[in-house]
Amino acid sequence: MNGAEAILKTLADNAVEVCFSNPGTSEMQMVSAFDREPRVRPVLCLFEGVATGAADGYARMAGKPGSTLLHLGAGLANGSANLHNSRRAYSPIVNIVGDHATYHRQYDAPLTSDIAGLAGPNSVWVKAGETPDQAADLTTEAIVASQTGAGGTATLILPADAAWNPASRTGPKAVVPPRPRPADGEIEAVARALKGAKKAVLLVGSGALTEAGVAAAGRLALVGVRVMVDTFTARQPRGAGRFTPDKMMYFGEMAMADLDGSDLLVLAGTQTPVAFFAYPEMPSVLVPPGCELMTLATPAQDGVWALQALADLLAAPERAVAAVEDIPDAAPTGDLTPYSIGASIARHMPAHAVISDDAVTSGLPVYLQTRGARPHDWLSLTGGAIGQGIPVAVGAAVASPGRKVLSLNGDGAAAYTVQGLWTMVRENLDVVTVIFANHAYRILNIELARTRSGNAGPQARRLLDLSDPRMDWVAMAKGFGMPATRCDTAEAFDAALARALAGHGPHLIEAVLG
Amino acid sequence: MNGAEAILKTLADNAVEVCFSNPGTSEMQMVSAFDREPRVRPVLCLFEGVATGAADGYARMAGKPGSTLLHLGAGLANGSANLHNSRRAYSPIVNIVGDHATYHRQYDAPLTSDIAGLAGPNSVWVKAGETPDQAADLTTEAIVASQTGAGGTATLILPADAAWNPASRTGPKAVVPPRPRPADGEIEAVARALKGAKKAVLLVGSGALTEAGVAAAGRLALVGVRVMVDTFTARQPRGAGRFTPDKMMYFGEMAMADLDGSDLLVLAGTQTPVAFFAYPEMPSVLVPPGCELMTLATPAQDGVWALQALADLLAAPERAVAAVEDIPDAAPTGDLTPYSIGASIARHMPAHAVISDDAVTSGLPVYLQTRGARPHDWLSLTGGAIGQGIPVAVGAAVASPGRKVLSLNGDGAAAYTVQGLWTMVRENLDVVTVIFANHAYRILNIELARTRSGNAGPQARRLLDLSDPRMDWVAMAKGFGMPATRCDTAEAFDAALARALAGHGPHLIEAVLG
Repeated sequence: MNGAEAILKTLADNAVEVCFSNPGTSEMQMVSAFDREPRVRPVLCLFEGVATGAADGYARMAGKPGSTLLHLGAGLANGSANLHNSRRAYSPIVNIVGDHATYHRQYDAPLTSDIAGLAGPNSVWVKAGETPDQAADLTTEAIVASQTGAGGTATLILPADAAWNPASRTGPKAVVPPRPRPADGEIEAVARALKGAKKAVLLVGSGALTEAGVAAAGRLALVGVRVMVDTFTARQPRGAGRFTPDKMMYFGEMAMADLDGSDLLVLAGTQTPVAFFAYPEMPSVLVPPGCELMTLATPAQDGVWALQALADLLAAPERAVAAVEDIPDAAPTGDLTPYSIGASIARHMPAHAVISDDAVTSGLPVYLQTRGARPHDWLSLTGGAIGQGIPVAVGAAVASPGRKVLSLNGDGAAAYTVQGLWTMVRENLDVVTVIFANHAYRILNIELARTRSGNAGPQARRLLDLSDPRMDWVAMAKGFGMPATRCDTAEAFDAALARALAGHGPHLIEAVLG
Repeated sequence: MNGAEAILKTLADNAVEVCFSNPGTSEMQMVSAFDREPRVRPVLCLFEGVATGAADGYARMAGKPGSTLLHLGAGLANGSANLHNSRRAYSPIVNIVGDHATYHRQYDAPLTSDIAGLAGPNSVWVKAGETPDQAADLTTEAIVASQTGAGGTATLILPADAAWNPASRTGPKAVVPPRPRPADGEIEAVARALKGAKKAVLLVGSGALTEAGVAAAGRLALVGVRVMVDTFTARQPRGAGRFTPDKMMYFGEMAMADLDGSDLLVLAGTQTPVAFFAYPEMPSVLVPPGCELMTLATPAQDGVWALQALADLLAAPERAVAAVEDIPDAAPTGDLTPYSIGASIARHMPAHAVISDDAVTSGLPVYLQTRGARPHDWLSLTGGAIGQGIPVAVGAAVASPGRKVLSLNGDGAAAYTVQGLWTMVRENLDVVTVIFANHAYRILNIELARTRSGNAGPQARRLLDLSDPRMDWVAMAKGFGMPATRCDTAEAFDAALARALAGHGPHLIEAVLG
């Protein structure tokens, strides 16, 4: 057994069963070892941002760590935008980054770089396994670290010789500490404040947004608390049969207007709400003046338990009011818009579908239309780094066999990590990818005005425009071996989506929006 | 004038005239300002790795800094693999990374990250311009820093409010210090050592490989020195009329055999040669036992002047022996191979073409076949992070109007930054992109054996294989609006290349290799 095998066995012994991989020479021992440890499934990605995004999607759906295999600092860098997103989702990821052999690092060979330095900003834990036995032990430590506190990326740097030299053991059994619970006194204080508040809001974020967390929050709605979720969450169980919270609005001034008059804001599994960006003379912190702020549970605490304890303390009814199934009977007609697409998705999406949303301006209309759709999970772009939708769908599909995955992508966003289409085809993943082709960075046309940058001149307009040339997403899908359909009316999209969802395996639909 | 305009004016005043951009909300003031500073040309890239690679290609051909505009830490991360490559090429890049407004950073909004931490490993200079005037001054400082010493990436972090608030001035005129020259005594010592050596080798790297540097090195060949270049160099002027040095071999044991018996190795504009990767029981440092190592000029010194001074000191003839034009008359026939492709390129490539080589295993055969081709510049993958070929071609074409650019890419490599094809179409760049479609990470099949990882089992083979599904590069090109041709014989490729090079504007050729 060499170091690579010891690592893979340690992963498998601790139920880390998938490794989204884009290896190079320094990772060849790991590549070879997959054949000797069949419990870990390698999934090849043609770009590292697909691998890390897939690990994120996997972790969100599997509720346990996905792993990656990346090639030194440059490979890590390519994967880092989606590790930024996964950091904001608190997704547990065991991020294995190969390095030169320990004795070779000193020579500053072309691929040498500061891997730990590059990993730090998006990792909760970074260590290098300098020998096979140390690498095996650190694999366990990484598995634990990725699931400790709120959860995050644990980056294990693996020098080539630590992989190829003989190992004497595998890593120990991973023991993940339970999330700490808030003290009883803290929950009682929140309960008292809620009783005294005139207009209280509970804001639930990714750290508490499991099915049980949503249900417990819904119970609190029955005792007069307005329940909201963050604009972007790792995974929101929703649709028929689930409680439907409100969503925090994206633009700060709208969020402030919506929260106007609230006198208490309670946080569960999230941070103080802030504007996504700063704008001249607009608020950064989205807490109305005079509104008291209390934390029920941080993302690192057991927010679900805290919500349940709070509901019990307030003698809230046992069951929340659940959304009633509300699905349009008839296909939408006329112009193809994000709203009509939302209606079609509500009509045809099967129960227990998973939505990976990187649709930017087109996402909210679909979200609003699927409020009463069959029960499903909604995975948001958590960190604002577009190019997450396709990769997260890859990982969600690997984690959730038997569930249909819908990947919603702005055309600008999809272009970042389009290589993920190939992995969907290779692994025959059951994903329908929708491209909202509006031929623009539409959000930036809005943001340009909001930042008071003046009227866009021809250069500025051209920097936000994707119509010259238009991308042909049907051809692009064909380039990666995926069947695809182009639609430009609501009726055509409805029919195409119905067909794609009735089948199995990957399909892409280009929705031409004007 | 706001901060954004002050920055653009400072760039323009100092001849930084192109900005490869992938902006977001925090960069909107810069986007808007391009219309008020027409001397800086924004070039939109659909992925940040295209922008940074293009800035690298631009810098290599223009001999002055290219600039970028990236979106916070996540955008920087996406661009960092090609900043790793550009670091190894010593390319001057002014890397402008937008950030949240200064007062907004503290709130940890979703896109907040440690930009300086992410930038450090691939930058020679990282500073944040916290006010408009500071940002303007630092723009000058960045321009200077990017060209000081060997050259590299200067990362200017630009908070949104430093861009939108009023500026009172632009940055001062950039004064780049000349590269220091080695002391006369050091050059004399090298000259003495060369006279005393039995078998001396001069290794020239990116830091000294200008047209004048190659010519001076060629003079030294006439006094008995074997002249070599590094395996991967930023830009090598070569072909008919230029001196032809040998190339350091990629695999360490081959390089060592090639250098066997050498008793003196002189470095000009490069570091001690080392193996690209470590392998069990293979050498890391590629200097034969007993061979003395001397540095004529580091990459940060004026290596071209040093080579000329050394040639004068050794009374070398004034002119090197130049390669004679040697172009195959007849089209290659039969199987399409990297060798036949090299012959076709030698036949049809016009004088002063630029080759961007990211063809991995297919690159060397083309390099060897074009030794006597019309004069051209060869731009190598300098840092080993594949996915450079298309982006560098974008930047080289922007820098070199009137020169034909050939982008050579392995299919695995091209998949990393395929989005660059779109920018070629939008900007109507005169680039012919060749995809060497061998449907594999071919190099890794070789490396797997060399790392003694054992026989590849089915999982390992699948991780190195790109044939399931095959990528369809003609469809992919169509997806980005580019005309394309597929060839699978030497004759067909020869004809297709001739047609593509006779035309103007972007074209892709998929060369199906077996």
